[in-house]
Amino acid sequence: MRELTLVGIGTGNPDHVTRQGAAALREAGLILVPRKGEEKADLADLRLRLCAELAPGVPVAEFDLPVRDAANPDYRGGVEDWHDAIARAWAQAAGNADHAALLIWGDPSLYDSSLRIAARLSPAPRVRVVPGITAIQALCAAHAIPLNEVGAPVVITTGRQLRAGWPAGTDTAVVMLDGECSFRTLDPSGLRIWWGAYLGMPEEILESGPLAEAAPRIVAARAEARARHGWIMDIYLLRRSGDVA
Amino acid sequence: MRELTLVGIGTGNPDHVTRQGAAALREAGLILVPRKGEEKADLADLRLRLCAELAPGVPVAEFDLPVRDAANPDYRGGVEDWHDAIARAWAQAAGNADHAALLIWGDPSLYDSSLRIAARLSPAPRVRVVPGITAIQALCAAHAIPLNEVGAPVVITTGRQLRAGWPAGTDTAVVMLDGECSFRTLDPSGLRIWWGAYLGMPEEILESGPLAEAAPRIVAARAEARARHGWIMDIYLLRRSGDVA
Repeated sequence: MRELTLVGIGTGNPDHVTRQGAAALREAGLILVPRKGEEKADLADLRLRLCAELAPGVPVAEFDLPVRDAANPDYRGGVEDWHDAIARAWAQAAGNADHAALLIWGDPSLYDSSLRIAARLSPAPRVRVVPGITAIQALCAAHAIPLNEVGAPVVITTGRQLRAGWPAGTDTAVVMLDGECSFRTLDPSGLRIWWGAYLGMPEEILESGPLAEAAPRIVAARAEARARHGWIMDIYLLRRSGDVA
Repeated sequence: MRELTLVGIGTGNPDHVTRQGAAALREAGLILVPRKGEEKADLADLRLRLCAELAPGVPVAEFDLPVRDAANPDYRGGVEDWHDAIARAWAQAAGNADHAALLIWGDPSLYDSSLRIAARLSPAPRVRVVPGITAIQALCAAHAIPLNEVGAPVVITTGRQLRAGWPAGTDTAVVMLDGECSFRTLDPSGLRIWWGAYLGMPEEILESGPLAEAAPRIVAARAEARARHGWIMDIYLLRRSGDVA
C-alpha cells in the first residue's frame, strides 16, 4: 500500500459527504470496510451503501475488525496491541492494492484512532486525510445554535473528563464518548444542555433545555433508543450562564 | 422570508461543500451574497462561482455588507448596531423571496455571527443550518494530525484569549481569529505548533514544528502572504508536551 486515504464521512447522513470525499473514494483502488468487532451491523451496511452510491465499481474489501482484549489489566498496553492488530488487518485486507481508502465516521481528526493506526503500517504509506462533518457541527446544526459565545472559548471533552468536574476556563463544553450520561454528576444550576443522538440519520433524536429539567428526559430517551437499536451514538453541548429559566 | 438556510461551505475549497449543502442551495429561491464591506473581492467572487457551479439557475442577490462603526467607543453596542444593520440588509436583499440561503465560510456554528443576525429578523423566518467543514478540520487534514490526544480534551479559543495565557486544563489549543500571531506571547518551551493559511485553497501555506523554531517562519510567511493577497485567513493548533525535539 503506497497511499492510504482516510475519508471523513460525517455522522451517518450520506449527504454529509463532501465532493472531495466522494472523489477520494472514486480515486481509490480499493475501499476497506470493517465487518465485525466493534462495528455494528447497520453501520457496516451504511458504509457499503455509501461505497456503492458514491464510488460504484471501486472494489470493496471487507475485513474482520480485531476485538480489543478488555480483560487486559494494562489498559494502555491493551490499546497498543489492539491498534497493532488493526494495522495488520488493514494491510492484509489491502493485499496488493496500491491505494486504499477508509471511511471514517465524522472526521479523522476527532476522537478517532485511524491516524494512529496508520502510523503503525510498515512500510509507511503516504497518508492523506479528507475532512468530514463532525458530530459537533451536526449537533449545532440540528439545534441551529452557535458552538461558541461571542469571542469565547469552547472545550471539547469526554464523559470521563467531565466526571472530574466542569472544565476550567470555559462556559461551553462539548462532551463526546460518554456512555454514562455524565452530565448527571454536575450541579445543574445555571447549566443548559443541547443533546443529540443518531445525528443526521432518520433515527435522529434531539433534546434540550435547562439541565435540571432535560437530564431525566435525556437519560430516558437514551436508554429507550439504545435498547431499541442495539447501539447509540450521541453527543451534547453544555453552556453555563445565569440565564436558563 | 419564511425560511432562511445557512449553508456551511468549508474553508474555500469548493470541494468541501457537502451534498446536503449543494442541495440546500439548489432548493433555495434566492441566494444572498455580500458584495462589499468586510468581504474581500476574491472571496465574494468565490461565492459567486460556487453558486453558479452548484446551483445554476438559482437567482443571486448581491448586497452591500454594512460596515461596522469602528469609531464607536462602545464595542459591544457597536457590534449590536452592526448586526441590526446586516439583518436589515438581508431582509432588503431578499425582497419577496420566500426561501433564501446564505453561504457561510466554514460552519455556521463556529465564530460566525449569522445565527445571531438571523435572530434579529422580524418576522422571524424558520432558520435551517447545513453543517460545513470548519477550518479546524481543514487544518488537521492538511497536516494529517489528530486534533486531540487519546481521550484528552481540546480547547478552541481566540488570539485575544491566548494572550491572557495558556488555557487551563488542556494540552491542546486551537486558535482562531488571531491577527496578531499571539503564539509569540507564550513561553515556547515544550510547545509544538501546526499552522495553516488559505486552507484548501490553491494558495494554501502550511508550517509546523517546535514553536521556538517555527514561530519566526510563521510570522514571516504570514506577513508576506498577507501583503501579496491583501487578506489572510489562518488558524493554528498548539500542543504541549515534553517531547518536541
